[in-house]
Amino acid sequence: MARYLVLQGPNLNLLGQREPQIYGERTLSKLHDDLGQWAKARGIELEFLQSNREGDLIDALQAAAGRCQGAVLNPGGFGHTSVALRDCIAGLSLPVVEVHLSNLHARESWRHRSLTGGAAKGVICGLGEAGYRLALLYLERAF
Amino acid sequence: MARYLVLQGPNLNLLGQREPQIYGERTLSKLHDDLGQWAKARGIELEFLQSNREGDLIDALQAAAGRCQGAVLNPGGFGHTSVALRDCIAGLSLPVVEVHLSNLHARESWRHRSLTGGAAKGVICGLGEAGYRLALLYLERAF
Amino acid sequence: MARYLVLQGPNLNLLGQREPQIYGERTLSKLHDDLGQWAKARGIELEFLQSNREGDLIDALQAAAGRCQGAVLNPGGFGHTSVALRDCIAGLSLPVVEVHLSNLHARESWRHRSLTGGAAKGVICGLGEAGYRLALLYLERAF
Amino acid sequence: MARYLVLQGPNLNLLGQREPQIYGERTLSKLHDDLGQWAKARGIELEFLQSNREGDLIDALQAAAGRCQGAVLNPGGFGHTSVALRDCIAGLSLPVVEVHLSNLHARESWRHRSLTGGAAKGVICGLGEAGYRLALLYLERAF
Amino acid sequence: MARYLVLQGPNLNLLGQREPQIYGERTLSKLHDDLGQWAKARGIELEFLQSNREGDLIDALQAAAGRCQGAVLNPGGFGHTSVALRDCIAGLSLPVVEVHLSNLHARESWRHRSLTGGAAKGVICGLGEAGYRLALLYLERAF
Amino acid sequence: MARYLVLQGPNLNLLGQREPQIYGERTLSKLHDDLGQWAKARGIELEFLQSNREGDLIDALQAAAGRCQGAVLNPGGFGHTSVALRDCIAGLSLPVVEVHLSNLHARESWRHRSLTGGAAKGVICGLGEAGYRLALLYLERAF
Amino acid sequence: MARYLVLQGPNLNLLGQREPQIYGERTLSKLHDDLGQWAKARGIELEFLQSNREGDLIDALQAAAGRCQGAVLNPGGFGHTSVALRDCIAGLSLPVVEVHLSNLHARESWRHRSLTGGAAKGVICGLGEAGYRLALLYLERAF
Amino acid sequence: MARYLVLQGPNLNLLGQREPQIYGERTLSKLHDDLGQWAKARGIELEFLQSNREGDLIDALQAAAGRCQGAVLNPGGFGHTSVALRDCIAGLSLPVVEVHLSNLHARESWRHRSLTGGAAKGVICGLGEAGYRLALLYLERAF
Amino acid sequence: MARYLVLQGPNLNLLGQREPQIYGERTLSKLHDDLGQWAKARGIELEFLQSNREGDLIDALQAAAGRCQGAVLNPGGFGHTSVALRDCIAGLSLPVVEVHLSNLHARESWRHRSLTGGAAKGVICGLGEAGYRLALLYLERAF
Amino acid sequence: MARYLVLQGPNLNLLGQREPQIYGERTLSKLHDDLGQWAKARGIELEFLQSNREGDLIDALQAAAGRCQGAVLNPGGFGHTSVALRDCIAGLSLPVVEVHLSNLHARESWRHRSLTGGAAKGVICGLGEAGYRLALLYLERAF
Amino acid sequence: MARYLVLQGPNLNLLGQREPQIYGERTLSKLHDDLGQWAKARGIELEFLQSNREGDLIDALQAAAGRCQGAVLNPGGFGHTSVALRDCIAGLSLPVVEVHLSNLHARESWRHRSLTGGAAKGVICGLGEAGYRLALLYLERAF
Amino acid sequence: MARYLVLQGPNLNLLGQREPQIYGERTLSKLHDDLGQWAKARGIELEFLQSNREGDLIDALQAAAGRCQGAVLNPGGFGHTSVALRDCIAGLSLPVVEVHLSNLHARESWRHRSLTGGAAKGVICGLGEAGYRLALLYLERAF
Repeated sequence: MARYLVLQGPNLNLLGQREPQIYGERTLSKLHDDLGQWAKARGIELEFLQSNREGDLIDALQAAAGRCQGAVLNPGGFGHTSVALRDCIAGLSLPVVEVHLSNLHARESWRHRSLTGGAAKGVICGLGEAGYRLALLYLERAF
Repeated sequence: MARYLVLQGPNLNLLGQREPQIYGERTLSKLHDDLGQWAKARGIELEFLQSNREGDLIDALQAAAGRCQGAVLNPGGFGHTSVALRDCIAGLSLPVVEVHLSNLHARESWRHRSLTGGAAKGVICGLGEAGYRLALLYLERAF
Repeated sequence: MARYLVLQGPNLNLLGQREPQIYGERTLSKLHDDLGQWAKARGIELEFLQSNREGDLIDALQAAAGRCQGAVLNPGGFGHTSVALRDCIAGLSLPVVEVHLSNLHARESWRHRSLTGGAAKGVICGLGEAGYRLALLYLERAF
Repeated sequence: MARYLVLQGPNLNLLGQREPQIYGERTLSKLHDDLGQWAKARGIELEFLQSNREGDLIDALQAAAGRCQGAVLNPGGFGHTSVALRDCIAGLSLPVVEVHLSNLHARESWRHRSLTGGAAKGVICGLGEAGYRLALLYLERAF
Repeated sequence: MARYLVLQGPNLNLLGQREPQIYGERTLSKLHDDLGQWAKARGIELEFLQSNREGDLIDALQAAAGRCQGAVLNPGGFGHTSVALRDCIAGLSLPVVEVHLSNLHARESWRHRSLTGGAAKGVICGLGEAGYRLALLYLERAF
Repeated sequence: MARYLVLQGPNLNLLGQREPQIYGERTLSKLHDDLGQWAKARGIELEFLQSNREGDLIDALQAAAGRCQGAVLNPGGFGHTSVALRDCIAGLSLPVVEVHLSNLHARESWRHRSLTGGAAKGVICGLGEAGYRLALLYLERAF
Repeated sequence: MARYLVLQGPNLNLLGQREPQIYGERTLSKLHDDLGQWAKARGIELEFLQSNREGDLIDALQAAAGRCQGAVLNPGGFGHTSVALRDCIAGLSLPVVEVHLSNLHARESWRHRSLTGGAAKGVICGLGEAGYRLALLYLERAF
Repeated sequence: MARYLVLQGPNLNLLGQREPQIYGERTLSKLHDDLGQWAKARGIELEFLQSNREGDLIDALQAAAGRCQGAVLNPGGFGHTSVALRDCIAGLSLPVVEVHLSNLHARESWRHRSLTGGAAKGVICGLGEAGYRLALLYLERAF
Repeated sequence: MARYLVLQGPNLNLLGQREPQIYGERTLSKLHDDLGQWAKARGIELEFLQSNREGDLIDALQAAAGRCQGAVLNPGGFGHTSVALRDCIAGLSLPVVEVHLSNLHARESWRHRSLTGGAAKGVICGLGEAGYRLALLYLERAF
Repeated sequence: MARYLVLQGPNLNLLGQREPQIYGERTLSKLHDDLGQWAKARGIELEFLQSNREGDLIDALQAAAGRCQGAVLNPGGFGHTSVALRDCIAGLSLPVVEVHLSNLHARESWRHRSLTGGAAKGVICGLGEAGYRLALLYLERAF
Repeated sequence: MARYLVLQGPNLNLLGQREPQIYGERTLSKLHDDLGQWAKARGIELEFLQSNREGDLIDALQAAAGRCQGAVLNPGGFGHTSVALRDCIAGLSLPVVEVHLSNLHARESWRHRSLTGGAAKGVICGLGEAGYRLALLYLERAF
Repeated sequence: MARYLVLQGPNLNLLGQREPQIYGERTLSKLHDDLGQWAKARGIELEFLQSNREGDLIDALQAAAGRCQGAVLNPGGFGHTSVALRDCIAGLSLPVVEVHLSNLHARESWRHRSLTGGAAKGVICGLGEAGYRLALLYLERAF
């Protein structure tokens, strides 16, 4: 059975409360519940981790490298600033798809570019929660 | 039955021949055939248009606004330069998802940002042909 | 009897529908009708052309050079990106006045400067439809 | 009877003498005389003020807010540097149209953008003295 | 017999009339006539195309790929702005030499770099009409 | 008895009327009345000056150097542009605390940095009218 | 009784030892002791936390949101680099005032702007330890 | 008898007191006394004016145009920011030599370039008080 | 006996696996074993720490300040982004030599400069594992 | 008999050995031999000089001004950095054509622009050794 | 008897011939003759050196350090590019005054700043040949 | 016996005299003497060359390519400006280690990056004279 890591970066635990006009009103645990069930129905096992710590995210990716078939990463604000996270993705053979809930290209100019996304397989942004599902479908080649 | 426009920008007619290390070796017509069949199997009608002309793309989007439920746009090089195409997307109520075969964030710095993508619903890049399917699944809310 | 070309660039055919909080709610054909009647009352013949194609606009300006006394150009998004359109204006002896419905200096920084406007006689921006009339009054020296 | 302030910024008192290849050979008082008569013939009362002092221009705009229907402002060099003048226009409800004798977009790059113009209704540049008349016609809605 | 495409970009049809202090006083048809005879005398067949449309130029290059041994391209203003034209040259195996009548390095800074030229074999600029002949001599290896 | 200069820069006389969503609805004279009474209750004498003139502000600071124990300066738009005001603060031994009603770091990028603030003791921004009181408490070391 | 979080970012535990010509010679624990007593005398309960970890600061702010009336944050070097910390402040309804011991506008240009400060209520910089007290007075509206 | 204007910009009245490690310890009146006597001994009449107001400097230059043979201008901080003062110098036929006490090229990068100096005959910087004398010798052609 | 801290930043635990064409094929533990033996043979005691967490590195440096004679730091990606780590080095009296396995000046432009390196004694880059030994030789003055 | 200087800048003496994937495998002396014979066959006398010294190149150009009909200059790395060489070309009436073996527009961005090329007649780049011949044909008007 | 080095950088040997609209029509030897006689009449001995070689200029300055009381340097194009020459001036105790014939602030933006001038005592530009005399008068304190 | 070139760039002959607070008080010949003896004791033969001429350095590197096992280069100011020197290192197979006495990352921003260093094996900066020894130990693999 396929297993993927769903890795959520800083402040995503605030979902539902944080700038809802941008990020929507559903909480992260609701998002994870729905996503987990949706995945299970497709025979996919998911591991969830949210952390506000850059090092946790790096450790989690490194640990997943041996155990999972891939990872879906929403790096939050680290996507624009973390060379360390970028180097981690580039240094692993684990396939990573990056997801952003909001459309990076429509926001402040310093959010246009994803430093971590450049080391990932690809980037899906602006499609809200659907982005996570599409990323998993991609990793599963289930489309 | 749902209908979508699949709009391909400049040089995508060279697919299979153009920088295959970046864009792969399959031709556009093969891509369109497979995509069309895949869509039909899901009850989706697709219209295909490829053009090397900025004006054609603008006209096609405007014309689709009344007739289609949405559009999947690969703007090619126009994504980085066309204010006119960006204004067109911003001026229509047609949902548009932008797709790039390659990972914009991993290429030349002047390809990091998509001007047109900022006016679209969202952007999928780096996932190859799968990007088109994921975009359609998003527009259909079929995930 | 004086004759002028009124040349409208990309997406101006969406007037009335496109971002009405910026561009107003009147359609282009209504704008053209009113402008044509207003001009006729002053003994001015107008030719109208709208195109989403850079080449059409260049061709139209070149063609007008022999037949009209001047041109009023709203280059839309091409004003900020088209070296070709700029070179065209610079290369003709036809007097051109550039008009923008919105105030370029109050929008995104990449709209502050008009590349084409620098090759025109002058630029009128932010005064809405009145801009076209003022441009014609200028060309007619009717003030 | 409508009343407007015609406000001239620094060095416009040098008109006729200053860089005549750019600004023409007529003096400011000649310009004001002709403009005043032209306005009076249309039932418009004009107040003229020229100053080389940023503070005078700000005071004059503030004072005009209660007494005039609008203002035509040629900010001269302050247009490119004065945040204070910009804030003044933005803070008043007085309609202001900005006029420049020369075409900003055709000069040094640091003249392309008008900081004050971004806070005005709109900007007319490059049309010489006619710019003042067109601005008044706009404010009077007399076209 | 060798066959080459001579492809002229926007506003080159204005040659002889457009900014003659920069581009000289000879018309494009005269240039083409002389160039064609010069080529024929060397056993070279030339096809000429001038267009103000980015898409035409892309189409023409793609069409020439099967039929000609190479192309001489003067991209005009598109050389500095067209990612699409650049991608087209990069995507074809057709040898392209870029020619500019004027010296790019001696003009406005935004003309220094040729985006399309970076995808061509090489660039010849500043040598006037001779540039076309030198480009053909290069393609023919006739020197 | 301690004496301080409260120096208000350009357009602060528009308070209550100017962009109230940013600067609030109270007038400057109300602000000064309240501040003066609050100060008097703490045994502090205040001098108030508002001017739209850079030179007035410089003169006032120079004059205060001998007579006051310090100054609270809201430089308005001059904070971002005036090297002369900056040099004045740097050249005096008078302690100056800079106050901005709005949060500079949350506004247009050209407002992020205060040139004059770099020469002051420190800067308080975003705390509205309270900023003036906090600045005086600091100067009085009354906390 | 009001309760506030006083949150100290990286290297503030080095106070008294670190670049004393910039940050003074008092230790953090001395600063906290004095600040705590000063606050208690005004009926304010303070919680102190110092961490060199971005994630700790984010967690602490999130945890304080339910328990405290506000927070005083000295983000240290994170103020200039942490999008994650900035997003955290923007996503909470907890009032945050940012404090810097040194004057940001007088130091290296990359310290001029506070990214986190733009999401806070306001910023106090350059006033040394007094900044913390002034921030608390502001949050308490006790002035 | 030759007559020159010696025009001093903002904060030069603080000479002797302002940042003496940069500007020296002599006062402006001492500098003017010595300079005046030195000039008189060479048959030169000097007029002195110092002002912290941009408009005063502009007015003074305009007034001197008819009455003096030239001007020595130390624009202080205005040299780096005043387009208006620059335009004034460019618009007059009065020969102006710009003087700075300190060496612009050795200070902050935003002091390297003199905007006003570009419109003057030339610039002398870094030579202290001697700069004024050298400027007068140049204007008198007395070397 | 001299004691030094060898501090390894993010992703250095991936050595041998991460981009081996850049970083080589030896693992970190092999590197540490060899380095430790080499040091011991020279009478040097080494402490090793690798962490993907900025805060761990800061804590480790602070803790080493009392216990070690110096530190060799490979900050990995933090070298280019961490103001906090830079401030830590600047705030301690512990001698730090920075080492990078790859040549910063030969890689992406955002890797050219080391922010942390500017606060260290010096920087050795591009010399692979030897860099650590050379750094220790420097700290020991053993050359 | 026509005489031209062929002037080779720094490191061109390494031809055949230096980065052969960019510059080819033939040595400079082979290049010069072939070029000399080719020229002689066309009645052209060539002088060759290679130097790694900026001053030698300037001297050689100055000396050639009286003796040669023109020069072909490959400035090597000096093309991007030498204002002195640029000023030399601009100051002489000797016709100079600049040649680069590689395509400047396809390399690092700091190689896109040729500072010296802007002062030359024109620039030929990317056409390898043929560039020298084409340059001579141009100077001889032999095409 | 005082002795000074007059050091002329690249292309100054072309004076009289090089861009005479900028640099005048007199030759360098005429300039040196007149300057030498003028100096001798004031009891000053001059040494002249012109070189197109950066290294010659550095050597000459180093050699003059022991033998002359100062130097007048016209660095020509090296003033904008030579860190080495700048470091040389900064490393010597020899007083150097930099002279430019033309007004740097009125030319291309990359000529505004003098890198070498920042290490000199001061800079005189735009005053033509007089600049050399004024520089010597300054060094002699003869004014 | 191994032989290395120690190549010193411009102004290093001023060592001991030039900005001693940055570069120390020992002369170059003392440095060379000590370094030579130190090397000889390790069985290494050194050749020393110092030159203020870019071309000398290039020639010396080229000449050493056949005769030495490597080179230690302190490029001085040329490190930041010389494309020619950079191209030389890149074009040779001679191993070069670059050394700077001072810490580039702690100085002016235009010294942060070494252009030449990017073509070298690696760079050692900030470690003073020890840098040369460490570079030789590296080249000898003697550590």
